Amino acid sequence: MEASLPTPRIPPFEECLPGSRKVLRGELGVPERVIQLSNGEQVAVYDTTGPQGHDPRMGLPRLRAPWIAARIARGDRNFSQMHYARRGMVTEEMRFVALRENVDPEFVRAEIARGRAILPANRNHPELEPMIIGRNFLVKVNANIGNSAVASSIEEEVDKLQWAVRWGADTVMDLSTGRNLRETREWILRNSPVPIGTVPIYEALERVQGRAEDLDLELFLEVLEEQASQGVDYFTIHAGVRLAYVPLTAGRVTGIVSRGGSIMAKWCLAHHRENFLYTGFERICEVMKKYDVSFSLGDGLRPGCTADANDAAQFAELRTLGELTEIAWRHDVQVMIEGPGHVPMHLIRENMDQQLALCHEAPFYTLGPLTTDIAPGYDHITSAIGAAMIGWFGTAMLCYVTPKEHLGLPDRDDVKAGVIAYKIAAHAADLAKNHPGARSRDDALSRARFEFRWQDQFNLSLDPVTARLYHDATLPQEGAKTAHFCSMCGPRFCSMKITEEVRAYAKEHGMSADAALAAGLGEKAAEFREQGARIYR
Amino acid sequence: MEASLPTPRIPPFEECLPGSRKVLRGELGVPERVIQLSNGEQVAVYDTTGPQGHDPRMGLPRLRAPWIAARIARGDRNFSQMHYARRGMVTEEMRFVALRENVDPEFVRAEIARGRAILPANRNHPELEPMIIGRNFLVKVNANIGNSAVASSIEEEVDKLQWAVRWGADTVMDLSTGRNLRETREWILRNSPVPIGTVPIYEALERVQGRAEDLDLELFLEVLEEQASQGVDYFTIHAGVRLAYVPLTAGRVTGIVSRGGSIMAKWCLAHHRENFLYTGFERICEVMKKYDVSFSLGDGLRPGCTADANDAAQFAELRTLGELTEIAWRHDVQVMIEGPGHVPMHLIRENMDQQLALCHEAPFYTLGPLTTDIAPGYDHITSAIGAAMIGWFGTAMLCYVTPKEHLGLPDRDDVKAGVIAYKIAAHAADLAKNHPGARSRDDALSRARFEFRWQDQFNLSLDPVTARLYHDATLPQEGAKTAHFCSMCGPRFCSMKITEEVRAYAKEHGMSADAALAAGLGEKAAEFREQGARIYR
Repeated sequence: MEASLPTPRIPPFEECLPGSRKVLRGELGVPERVIQLSNGEQVAVYDTTGPQGHDPRMGLPRLRAPWIAARIARGDRNFSQMHYARRGMVTEEMRFVALRENVDPEFVRAEIARGRAILPANRNHPELEPMIIGRNFLVKVNANIGNSAVASSIEEEVDKLQWAVRWGADTVMDLSTGRNLRETREWILRNSPVPIGTVPIYEALERVQGRAEDLDLELFLEVLEEQASQGVDYFTIHAGVRLAYVPLTAGRVTGIVSRGGSIMAKWCLAHHRENFLYTGFERICEVMKKYDVSFSLGDGLRPGCTADANDAAQFAELRTLGELTEIAWRHDVQVMIEGPGHVPMHLIRENMDQQLALCHEAPFYTLGPLTTDIAPGYDHITSAIGAAMIGWFGTAMLCYVTPKEHLGLPDRDDVKAGVIAYKIAAHAADLAKNHPGARSRDDALSRARFEFRWQDQFNLSLDPVTARLYHDATLPQEGAKTAHFCSMCGPRFCSMKITEEVRAYAKEHGMSADAALAAGLGEKAAEFREQGARIYR
Repeated sequence: MEASLPTPRIPPFEECLPGSRKVLRGELGVPERVIQLSNGEQVAVYDTTGPQGHDPRMGLPRLRAPWIAARIARGDRNFSQMHYARRGMVTEEMRFVALRENVDPEFVRAEIARGRAILPANRNHPELEPMIIGRNFLVKVNANIGNSAVASSIEEEVDKLQWAVRWGADTVMDLSTGRNLRETREWILRNSPVPIGTVPIYEALERVQGRAEDLDLELFLEVLEEQASQGVDYFTIHAGVRLAYVPLTAGRVTGIVSRGGSIMAKWCLAHHRENFLYTGFERICEVMKKYDVSFSLGDGLRPGCTADANDAAQFAELRTLGELTEIAWRHDVQVMIEGPGHVPMHLIRENMDQQLALCHEAPFYTLGPLTTDIAPGYDHITSAIGAAMIGWFGTAMLCYVTPKEHLGLPDRDDVKAGVIAYKIAAHAADLAKNHPGARSRDDALSRARFEFRWQDQFNLSLDPVTARLYHDATLPQEGAKTAHFCSMCGPRFCSMKITEEVRAYAKEHGMSADAALAAGLGEKAAEFREQGARIYR
């Protein structure tokens, strides 16, 4: 960490999330954000924001250091959480996650052992607050950051990392492709409370001056070892782009759109040989388990437009990813599977069904999918639609898409817009799955809305400052924050008063909701149907 | 039209939609927007923008005036398009719509006769460019505008109207509740190329100084007659809020949230009598058919939060709306049915199924639905998810939600954000329904993207200016608009080159896509599976 970072330029926690305080639960210090309401109630929400107020040049506290030290001291060789889980051991990370998700630690262990969930936690990333990715847990969101040869700096990337977790990103991928890759990654890792993913083939490509055909397994393993030793928690590896599948993309509208997929396709064609990531997969597994890096098996042949969705190339690769999953599992290495991309709504379900069947229920991790191609500048929305649906169907983690997708590199505003759109999609999926407890925040906010507790409504929302700003655009006076009306209906008339009258009426007539139903649909309705019959004949 | 309007303040058509020109097709002058691409191709898209360059103080040209004059001259009494359709007559409006939707005029007539589609077109709104709402046509979008007692002016509302249709709104509702209701409406109607809807009970309430209990049928019919004679194309009427259903809302988290629903519930409770809109429904039908105003039967008991979705109150009202539909149809009056609101994803399908069954396939017109309550400030996104899904399931028109929903009145930026989010939802639904021709714009844009025709990609998008702005944020140089790379991957590496190589490879090896598939999954795959078997054991 040679470069000097300026003072972080993102606003402080309290300013972004007013009315909230961070609480560390239990001996493990599991983070939670508690929102204090004006009526005395408290609502606790999942918290990804990480420890606050630390100098980024010093990095975050090393929460996991003692846990890992004990494992090294006793001479462990395979550090994978799956390895421990299969041997019946509940690690500190699993207990941490259990508290965080309000489930039994044994359930966490069993899901990891089965491969249905992963706990990405490199032993060299002690700053990590453990989290879990699996379809029987809360749906997670990944945010991509990273500079390219054309734009952005290390400082900006660390800012984006902190900004992404502030708004709820559960993991962050560093997709940098420019210079200073190692240094950028180091800054990011030392300041990240969430798992960091990378695509190591990008760095490998830099080392051969961008000539894909000069890549080979030895170089790749070297890069892998270096990045793993820095603490990267999961690697996207495009081992499913097999030589035989490449021609399947020839008739596509947009060919191969994955950067990693393109690199490997080019290598395969140049040598007319099988993908070295495929043939060398077991050697890759050796590095993975040494540090407990999880696989994120890349979908290098994902569709780049709705026209190419669900084609032969895509599903051929998915089948191969399923085969590789079994190999990784034989090494006790954790695996998730990357998915598309661009898929119209009626073809989304098939992606989930095929993934579950072909990949043995390893967690699915999808990019969107975007449900139409006609809205560049708004692809956080085109894709939030697909993301919510596939999350409901069983996808465990959603990779965000920002408004800049297809157009440019996301800046800080884009990162926030992308994370919030995806928190919406993930939460909508949790609700649709009837995930235990997911509805409590919605209900608390609805009650606050109904009772005109404006400040509570703001503070319970995903973005309190924006909600308040929008309210104040029409009614800026401080008094309006306690007023029993809003600018939509004006002071004269409001539905809340009516509902109070309805409740009084129901009470006066001694009606419970059920009785009201019976009365309503019984005698009263019959009476009016008779009247109606007279009127309408 | 007494007030003087300033020069319109929205930017001109050409500035918002560069590379496009408006074309009027056929003798009826059906509008179309033709996007000229740099490779010589043209893409024609549905156009709602209306005639350009007219002085709003003079209003738009009266396209339908001669058609209507002929009907009056021959002494017609029922001007409803359904009336004509059922008598086998294909009106000019139906032919217009057929050209606009690229279908047979006889199909349009049959769908209207069956009640499965409506063509809202008041005979006193000659400025209208006819359009159709039904699930066998393109999914439509409504934008709400309107001032309240607290904020905004007539000028702003006319601006918002023009702005909404510029971005693709298919109908506009004037929900004003403040002063100058009649005057605001007049300005809007005379300048609207799209159907205008209102909620007449708002004006009725103003006339009784906000005292709901003072409302009665005679006053309501008076308001109805006045608004109909001005040219309003559809009325939201909350005739399904029956006395017996009101107590069913007592146990809800957010009670009754529809303004119109609240007004009628209050009236019912105050008098302990049946809703006069229900008992007087046939008299209302008389006014509707005289002008051909369509019913938008209001869902006054729609859920105001996800917790209240799909409850007894909501479905009791829906059943009544189905009964009222049959009555309206006996008068040859066109009907659509309003729907929720706030519904988690797993409960959306039931809304559509129930509506189709209970309301005899009359078109469904839903507000969102919002799929979670936790994101005020972003409810255009929470609801675009639900809107896309219910559009796919069969909803004919989607009522937009803006970022200001629940917080304040939408300004012009919010109107645009809402319309674009809903154009995305509607188009995603058209794609999922495999609507004929829907995919051509997506495919044209994908080809432009793949071939680095940046300007074409911008111009084909829903919002060309924003797309270009986002691109230029990273690569502002004019040369970058023709460059074969972008800021995401940088100049060194790009997937397009790879795909060219893949195509060359496939061609060189004499492979069609099918042959490649066979080769890939056949011999090649078998060969590598054997290798794999050696490697992995």
